[in-house]
Amino acid sequence: MTVKGLSLPELVDACVEFGVSSVGLWRDPVRAFGVGAAARLVHDAGLTVSTLCRGGFLTATGPAERAAALDDNRAAVREAAGLGTDTLVLVCGGLPPGGHDLGAARGRIADALGSLVPYAADHGVRLAIEPLHPMFASDRCVVSTLEQALDLAEPFPADQVGVCVDTYHVWWDDHAPAQVARAAEAGRLHAFQLADWVTPLPEGVLNGRGQLGDGVIDLREWHTRLDEAGYTGPVEVELFSDVLWARDGRELLAETVDRYRTHAAP
Amino acid sequence: MTVKGLSLPELVDACVEFGVSSVGLWRDPVRAFGVGAAARLVHDAGLTVSTLCRGGFLTATGPAERAAALDDNRAAVREAAGLGTDTLVLVCGGLPPGGHDLGAARGRIADALGSLVPYAADHGVRLAIEPLHPMFASDRCVVSTLEQALDLAEPFPADQVGVCVDTYHVWWDDHAPAQVARAAEAGRLHAFQLADWVTPLPEGVLNGRGQLGDGVIDLREWHTRLDEAGYTGPVEVELFSDVLWARDGRELLAETVDRYRTHAAP
Repeated sequence: MTVKGLSLPELVDACVEFGVSSVGLWRDPVRAFGVGAAARLVHDAGLTVSTLCRGGFLTATGPAERAAALDDNRAAVREAAGLGTDTLVLVCGGLPPGGHDLGAARGRIADALGSLVPYAADHGVRLAIEPLHPMFASDRCVVSTLEQALDLAEPFPADQVGVCVDTYHVWWDDHAPAQVARAAEAGRLHAFQLADWVTPLPEGVLNGRGQLGDGVIDLREWHTRLDEAGYTGPVEVELFSDVLWARDGRELLAETVDRYRTHAAP
Repeated sequence: MTVKGLSLPELVDACVEFGVSSVGLWRDPVRAFGVGAAARLVHDAGLTVSTLCRGGFLTATGPAERAAALDDNRAAVREAAGLGTDTLVLVCGGLPPGGHDLGAARGRIADALGSLVPYAADHGVRLAIEPLHPMFASDRCVVSTLEQALDLAEPFPADQVGVCVDTYHVWWDDHAPAQVARAAEAGRLHAFQLADWVTPLPEGVLNGRGQLGDGVIDLREWHTRLDEAGYTGPVEVELFSDVLWARDGRELLAETVDRYRTHAAP
């Protein structure tokens, strides 16, 4: 998503050129390219798929909508398995139209997980619940903290449900470090993503993430925190940014690799 | 601030007409009008000043800037006393330029309170620390939760430092209800403000608050929560909104009173 202007073949080429050995993919471009073709493209280049983004959106109230959401999530699980990644990231969904009850929406997520988790496990795919920044609580994700994400994960086996830690979403939370430790002790640190926080936020606030080092987050401290907690998985960089997307994708990827080394790698 | 298009005399007239008995004022228009003149205007109309907004911005690192911030806060205390309100709301400030350390910034707030609180107490003014939504953590307020605000307040007497609960800033936080109870038990519920949460957020996210009832917050639940905790002070409505400010101020105030009754009053 950081370099969404690149086609999948261009992305794979650029990853190889700039020494990126693992890449997180998004469903839309994968489906447009074909899951099997995308899997071959990535693996023939010697890369691995770190995670597939994203399933989720499990907060609807109507039975038909809930069934459709579960169907779509089962499709996402099959796509993840087809790509050879073990991790499907979940963005759990916001309040339904007219809804006011965050707790009830989280309860519907818990219910949906109960049916989705066994299906994912059968496909060798684990789910990584990603808390999103509280500014997305109403319209995108009612799971706003790592604590809430872990509370949702906890009823399930650790190798089936964990969390995705994205610095952009959790950097402000003084409880997050303890929750990283809790996740690590439980074996539920399933994904780790980097983005920096810059202001002013753009209209709609979705596509205003900062290039690593341009913002206020101590990315090296976060990286070290995950490392010391025992996280050994891939480190993804996920920069939703209209400003960055306007640039040449290869140049942006090269810059991002450089910024990772300068500002994030311990 | 909800009807900032109205001059102070127009505001006072409209409050009297629409049955608003208490009004929260902001420093800039008060100083422009003159503190003494504003106090006479409000009190001669039979109104009281609920709070003065705002002091704070206590996170600078340089000695000169810190001294200037404290001077400005002492002026705010005197203005509050001059207006006859007992409560000065504090928006504590964001990260300093180039800063990455939220905890250190909160520590500088604690230090500044140590010198500001006795001055305010001498003037009969209590400080209400307002946590702001985490989307403001970098550039406006490093105090993002009621828990953090109460942690900052706790070293001081309850009648000298408390918190301001604004639904817009805390509605997403599942720890907030317990922290409201904690604040109430400690006698630190010093101000209560209502605004609704609507999306999409505008560029800069400051002026996108929703009219009561237009958004996702269960305002009646929050009002009831504060009531049941024992809060008996004024209930302010604070709608920073470019959309609302474009409307006629009197009409907006009348609508706000109506919305308060329909959507918030228990």
